Amino acid sequence: MAEPPPLHALLTPLAFLLGSWRGKGHGIYPTIDDFDYLEVATFSHVGKPFIAYAQRTSDLATGAPLHAETGYLRPTGSDTAEFIVAQPSGIVEMHEVVINGTSLTMHSHTVITTPTAKRVDAVTRVLGVTGDRLDYHLDMAAVGEPLQRHLTASLER
Amino acid sequence: MAEPPPLHALLTPLAFLLGSWRGKGHGIYPTIDDFDYLEVATFSHVGKPFIAYAQRTSDLATGAPLHAETGYLRPTGSDTAEFIVAQPSGIVEMHEVVINGTSLTMHSHTVITTPTAKRVDAVTRVLGVTGDRLDYHLDMAAVGEPLQRHLTASLER
Repeated sequence: MAEPPPLHALLTPLAFLLGSWRGKGHGIYPTIDDFDYLEVATFSHVGKPFIAYAQRTSDLATGAPLHAETGYLRPTGSDTAEFIVAQPSGIVEMHEVVINGTSLTMHSHTVITTPTAKRVDAVTRVLGVTGDRLDYHLDMAAVGEPLQRHLTASLER
Repeated sequence: MAEPPPLHALLTPLAFLLGSWRGKGHGIYPTIDDFDYLEVATFSHVGKPFIAYAQRTSDLATGAPLHAETGYLRPTGSDTAEFIVAQPSGIVEMHEVVINGTSLTMHSHTVITTPTAKRVDAVTRVLGVTGDRLDYHLDMAAVGEPLQRHLTASLER
């Protein structure tokens, strides 16, 4: 691998995210059984003004693959960004992001789903980094249910 | 790394895509200068009924990173699939895919762009594999221009 390129100046407010993160999460929703998962998430850059994001989760008990998602975070100012993320379940979220120190608050601007996917109407993601610890939670309005907590996780760099 | 898991039965018609591909492409569009690129693309699976896709291109002369995209291909039958792909330029394409032997024809069902992204109205992608060679072209209607050839590339596994 080549040396990592210099960080683009526009990424300075998001540099706290960079790296590979690993930890555990818990999922709930009225329409499914609760579940626990292992997660590996990476935020990386190539010297251009965006961060590439990818994540995979697996069942805490069996190791079987559960969720995955992949997308990009695009700074639009010193305290704002856009986030787009695709999921193999056929869901794409487009978010407007507010950066507050080392926390991000994301409210979905648009959610689109493929013709055979389950319906998702809105997603809110809140993520905060303290040193080498990343905590997030995700609220979702889907399959006719109102916006409510779906995921909570804590990862370490 | 663990052993690769068995292929999900729904992926059988798409197994010809799996692997890492590398090669060269050429880009044209009325609003930009022609360009030549190197591309690395991967199609992978984790035993579930979808293929993860990721690609990066770099300038053929300088090696500087150019485009990237990442998403998922979801079979919906023996000869149909859905494809969603996110791009750091703030564009997300959602395609309906027809599988014909080892060729895929994708017509965009929906294209969404972030508030600060350039406008893209429609994309058609045609991809064919012959042995260890993958050829594709991509037509795009964007920034007020009608649907027309944008990219042509040939990769090897």
